[in-house]
Amino acid sequence: MSPITESFVTVSKDSDFPIQNIPFGVFSTSDKPEPRVGTAIGDQVLDLSEVAKAGLLDNIEGLNEPAKIFSESSLNTFMSLGRPVWKKTRLAIQDILSKDSTKLKDNTELVQKALIPLTSVKMHLPAKIGDYTDFYCSRDHATNVGIMFRGKDNALQPNWLHIPVGYHGRASSVVVSGTDLHRPAGQKLPSKDAKAPIFGPSARLDIELEVGWFVGTGNKLGDRIDIKDAQDHIFGLVLVNDWSARDIQAWEYVPLGPFLGKSFGTTISPWIVTLDALEPFLINGPDQSSPEPLKYLEEKKPSAYDIELQVQIKPAESSKFETVTVSNLKHMYWSITQQLAHHTVNGCNMRPGDMGATGTISGPEKGSYGSLLEITWSGRDKITFEDGVERLFLQDGDQVKITGQAHGQDYNIGFGECSGKILPCKFA
Amino acid sequence: MSPITESFVTVSKDSDFPIQNIPFGVFSTSDKPEPRVGTAIGDQVLDLSEVAKAGLLDNIEGLNEPAKIFSESSLNTFMSLGRPVWKKTRLAIQDILSKDSTKLKDNTELVQKALIPLTSVKMHLPAKIGDYTDFYCSRDHATNVGIMFRGKDNALQPNWLHIPVGYHGRASSVVVSGTDLHRPAGQKLPSKDAKAPIFGPSARLDIELEVGWFVGTGNKLGDRIDIKDAQDHIFGLVLVNDWSARDIQAWEYVPLGPFLGKSFGTTISPWIVTLDALEPFLINGPDQSSPEPLKYLEEKKPSAYDIELQVQIKPAESSKFETVTVSNLKHMYWSITQQLAHHTVNGCNMRPGDMGATGTISGPEKGSYGSLLEITWSGRDKITFEDGVERLFLQDGDQVKITGQAHGQDYNIGFGECSGKILPCKFA
Repeated sequence: MSPITESFVTVSKDSDFPIQNIPFGVFSTSDKPEPRVGTAIGDQVLDLSEVAKAGLLDNIEGLNEPAKIFSESSLNTFMSLGRPVWKKTRLAIQDILSKDSTKLKDNTELVQKALIPLTSVKMHLPAKIGDYTDFYCSRDHATNVGIMFRGKDNALQPNWLHIPVGYHGRASSVVVSGTDLHRPAGQKLPSKDAKAPIFGPSARLDIELEVGWFVGTGNKLGDRIDIKDAQDHIFGLVLVNDWSARDIQAWEYVPLGPFLGKSFGTTISPWIVTLDALEPFLINGPDQSSPEPLKYLEEKKPSAYDIELQVQIKPAESSKFETVTVSNLKHMYWSITQQLAHHTVNGCNMRPGDMGATGTISGPEKGSYGSLLEITWSGRDKITFEDGVERLFLQDGDQVKITGQAHGQDYNIGFGECSGKILPCKFA
Repeated sequence: MSPITESFVTVSKDSDFPIQNIPFGVFSTSDKPEPRVGTAIGDQVLDLSEVAKAGLLDNIEGLNEPAKIFSESSLNTFMSLGRPVWKKTRLAIQDILSKDSTKLKDNTELVQKALIPLTSVKMHLPAKIGDYTDFYCSRDHATNVGIMFRGKDNALQPNWLHIPVGYHGRASSVVVSGTDLHRPAGQKLPSKDAKAPIFGPSARLDIELEVGWFVGTGNKLGDRIDIKDAQDHIFGLVLVNDWSARDIQAWEYVPLGPFLGKSFGTTISPWIVTLDALEPFLINGPDQSSPEPLKYLEEKKPSAYDIELQVQIKPAESSKFETVTVSNLKHMYWSITQQLAHHTVNGCNMRPGDMGATGTISGPEKGSYGSLLEITWSGRDKITFEDGVERLFLQDGDQVKITGQAHGQDYNIGFGECSGKILPCKFA
């Protein structure tokens, strides 16, 4: 069977959501406020709960009670079913959306009920995130931060080329794109040489361009996920903005790592793009011969993804978004499968819906840096926007939008938006 | 109304669970494997789902559908109802257990159904833990670790006396007492001066004596919990063993903090002891005048708890448990309410069932140190048990048991056991 490449639903050439994508998300509508599962096609959402109720997703091996599963308010149950089921479901959805299939196209009543413009739905978090882990896997980012804080000769910590360094993040404050966030307040040093902190709103509020990965099937406590199986455990990817209050972070993070400088909010894009949709964009990762990773981290197959990533900012006083960064997921030193294999090598258990993120994805040049910390070199070099507005870090009212696309021959696989606005500090 | 001090259920003098306690937990039995909510009284469990079904918990303001709430497999719903409801429910349970009340005592059929020996129930995690945060709030512990790693003059980091330092932990691997854990494997340096890591089972497997606190009612993202209200947001306390693989931790933790050295397992005692039961044991905390904490961390009322804590170890080749540590929760520098106020000061949202823990609770003397790292001074001084067995860190088959009691005039408020056994590494 040759792959399905055209839908009866109109898909513009630059759309994030051609029939080759079929991402999964959770949405609601004003006339039916119960969150449920859908996919995006062109500029429409296909309500999978309605499609399943109509029997169009029957007879998929391993997908029992599809109407029930896609009426749930999170993808966790579907995620737990495993990659063969995700694959078959994706193919079945492509089939009913195909221009050659009459199953959905000719059922006017169902089309009317199940196809809803993207602009009229409200998106929700796609999963109940049990645990969220943030890694630190871009060599350029770690090097830039290292140079700023420790100088060129000691930029990378001794463990960095051996370990996909990561830390536990805060799951409760992961929010879906479009959720505005208040500027956090906290302890910070009033000057570099100060001995005692003051309390106040963060004055160095930053972004971090990241990609998140959702665990589909997990592992039991005490077991581990072998790197050769890791791709089958990952349901798919989202875009992540790991907002960071650099002044709070700098004062608090020794010796136990980032905490309140991060936990005030982490934004993700609403559509989870499956690894099956992204398979055509798998490429070899960076050279890891010096040093070679330990055996449990050895990749035997292509494990990097060629996905272009953009950060756009609209300063409060500007009328439009302007691109400040163009980066690419392929810049990661450690792959997402290395991250997952490392995470479980001590027996730590993963559950469906757990989320990992890559850490800031910076490329080698300034135009590809994934944080304002790097772009402004720790607040030294202003960013000047086209209308003359200047920024070092984010001001109240600033909006940030992250997008990403893998570019195919005649189509793109995209993620939609990961966006948010900074509201003034609520208390301080 | 004078407080109820005697139950019709026999309670031995040294019991953890007199009628003054009324902890909450989740249990199941072999003949009824559905987990449900109970309290402990003497050496019995009172099945609150049965008591509620019989109507004995009707008419508690704010506790609608008690039979449904106590038939759930976690305490999260009950926790979300707020302290006035927890208080009234605890008083109502004390009332029906009182020796002067006939409500339960004279209902032979219900007594037979609802009172079950502790020895014949299986305990489960008391809550679905959304997020778990571990602090580092004992000054003696932080000082000991600091001396070992940085020398006496730089023992405490510059931020330590200003911030209740904490980090996000792993929620998925929190397990209930009695769950055995496999020794984790991971990256570690083969010698102090080695440049490259090796892979293998942890050779420095340690314990951490901690106390955990469960969030009852939370806060919305962007809001904060004021320190004066913090006690009302905390449902209660448990004992925690934050197992730690020191060799894995030492290699991985710079700069983002502990990760795989901790996430292979964290054990908690099954019964949550409410702050209401512990109120008689509130005392003033340590002197915090130099430096004074920032305003949002200022305690205006007693906020330390006088709770004696013990660690016992039974080496694999020994026939009995032996006490290696007697400590006390009062040794904490930062109170649990300071921890919660700090955690939310940036707007981070708490949800019912989220768990915090104090960090290792060490007192000023060697006999009160809460980790083997401190007791053996980083593996220098062996512990010799009565039968001549020696230990620096934990060996396979070793069992660890943490207990805790607040001592009242004629009664103790205890927690039951927080125990676990180390099984051999499964892979390495």
